[in-house]
Amino acid sequence: MTFTIPLVARGNVDAWTAALSTAMPEARIVPFADTTEAERASAVVAIAANPDPAELAQLPNLVWVQSLWAGVERMVAELPRGLTVVRLVDPQLAETMAEAVLAFTLYLFREVPHYRRAQEARRWDPLLLRLPDEMPVGILGLGNLGRAAARRLMAQGFPVLGWNRTSRPMEGVETFWGADGLDAMLERTKVAVVLLPLTPETRGLVDAAALARLPEGASLINFARGPIVDTGALIAALDTGRLSHAVLDVFDEEPLPAESPLWSHPGITVLPHVSAPTHRATAAAIVATNIRAFRESGTIPEAVDRMRGY
Amino acid sequence: MTFTIPLVARGNVDAWTAALSTAMPEARIVPFADTTEAERASAVVAIAANPDPAELAQLPNLVWVQSLWAGVERMVAELPRGLTVVRLVDPQLAETMAEAVLAFTLYLFREVPHYRRAQEARRWDPLLLRLPDEMPVGILGLGNLGRAAARRLMAQGFPVLGWNRTSRPMEGVETFWGADGLDAMLERTKVAVVLLPLTPETRGLVDAAALARLPEGASLINFARGPIVDTGALIAALDTGRLSHAVLDVFDEEPLPAESPLWSHPGITVLPHVSAPTHRATAAAIVATNIRAFRESGTIPEAVDRMRGY
Repeated sequence: MTFTIPLVARGNVDAWTAALSTAMPEARIVPFADTTEAERASAVVAIAANPDPAELAQLPNLVWVQSLWAGVERMVAELPRGLTVVRLVDPQLAETMAEAVLAFTLYLFREVPHYRRAQEARRWDPLLLRLPDEMPVGILGLGNLGRAAARRLMAQGFPVLGWNRTSRPMEGVETFWGADGLDAMLERTKVAVVLLPLTPETRGLVDAAALARLPEGASLINFARGPIVDTGALIAALDTGRLSHAVLDVFDEEPLPAESPLWSHPGITVLPHVSAPTHRATAAAIVATNIRAFRESGTIPEAVDRMRGY
Repeated sequence: MTFTIPLVARGNVDAWTAALSTAMPEARIVPFADTTEAERASAVVAIAANPDPAELAQLPNLVWVQSLWAGVERMVAELPRGLTVVRLVDPQLAETMAEAVLAFTLYLFREVPHYRRAQEARRWDPLLLRLPDEMPVGILGLGNLGRAAARRLMAQGFPVLGWNRTSRPMEGVETFWGADGLDAMLERTKVAVVLLPLTPETRGLVDAAALARLPEGASLINFARGPIVDTGALIAALDTGRLSHAVLDVFDEEPLPAESPLWSHPGITVLPHVSAPTHRATAAAIVATNIRAFRESGTIPEAVDRMRGY
């Protein structure tokens, strides 16, 4: 029997409806605005991307919500505690993120910002090339994205360090945990890569004190969420020359406002949130697998820990 | 018994003397200017980097010359045909070049030139991310550098095509050869990577006709020698928008003159010959191995084919 799943999303509703319908031909994927009262009353599962909480509140029998995104900090903050939120865990997303981390680590390792400035000044200015083993990369957040990134970096010869809030060892990676561990890792990191979820604990984690632990000339890559890094402290560290460069894909406000000083800072590469965009087809297939398992056996995939925030 | 090897080099003479002396403590490495007449008369082997042919001509009993560089087009053009020239084949050099090819292929794949222009204009302009399998990379010159590059590109999911003047198959790579093969490969190449030696045959090989074979929006990376690519034809193809970008590390004249239009072309990334600098210590160790083998058994390493040019 065909069943109905409300899609509660702001943006790309048609594209998501098409992708999810292709992945789940046995179901009817209906945008929230098009649902009937009976469909809303009977829904036990919904699919959500940047949902309006007021719309989810109109699904009285909802048991769980499948997010189409990996980052769920807003849903966690806005939705009732009793509702189970499942975030998207997409191996393709992890590989795409790992590729982005490798691409921009090599961008820093190969001194592209320096050669761009030299080109603008018509200056032939070769730097001595380091070997990868002279540039340890410290990953903040060694979850499924961080592990995929660590594997690609190690394959290119970069030493990899990793930090989590709790101890999570990984072969070939020197791992650190807790507040003391973060300081110890940063002191030995030449390129810090932020891949943490945004939670009350990680908000502002990379502040002036944390940046001060990095060695002279280190760089930062933030591919996670803007508010994890204190933007003012970052600009100050770049301005004094203590840090050499930052690659930022995420910001406190997105799109980054035209008047932001980040656009014109010579030590900052601005990317418009493109490190690991969701691949709609692979994401839809994962959602289909999760919902089928629930329909067949009542199993709900591992939920977001509402206390922890991810 | 200590024997003397003249070092015939222009540039970095002291640094090379030190590195070679460390690698060959059993020999005396003597810069040409410091050799005695007796030492010049008895030398059967010399080490050379950008040598003055007039100096080599003063070594009457010379049998072979060990180059400190992989690129020997100038030595081949300038030295007497009877002299055996051995170029540097350094596995570390091949890996460094492969890393450079990967770094700048990812730079193009991740649309860094587009995002740089967007940042300059304070414009939030995300592009749809392709998957690596949508961007075939065509390597011109599948020798030891090209093969190392192909391995790294394939490990990141890029389809790799390869061309040589004669047939040289490689597992996982679709290989092409001869003039017809070059056209056929270019037609399917999104990023063309030039890793060929400079010879009379390869000079100007990548001309207007070759560039016209590349599909709309393709890019070019030249990490080999400037004169292999027709600079005027390349600029024309970028200006019409047929090609999207070129990363150039080598030029007809180096350092690139300050008045060159390449510096300010928005479709060109200029690098100052840094794709794969010689690592002095590893190069010196390879030279030591070659010269010891010659001293012990009379074996001369595989020589440059003077007709072929590499």
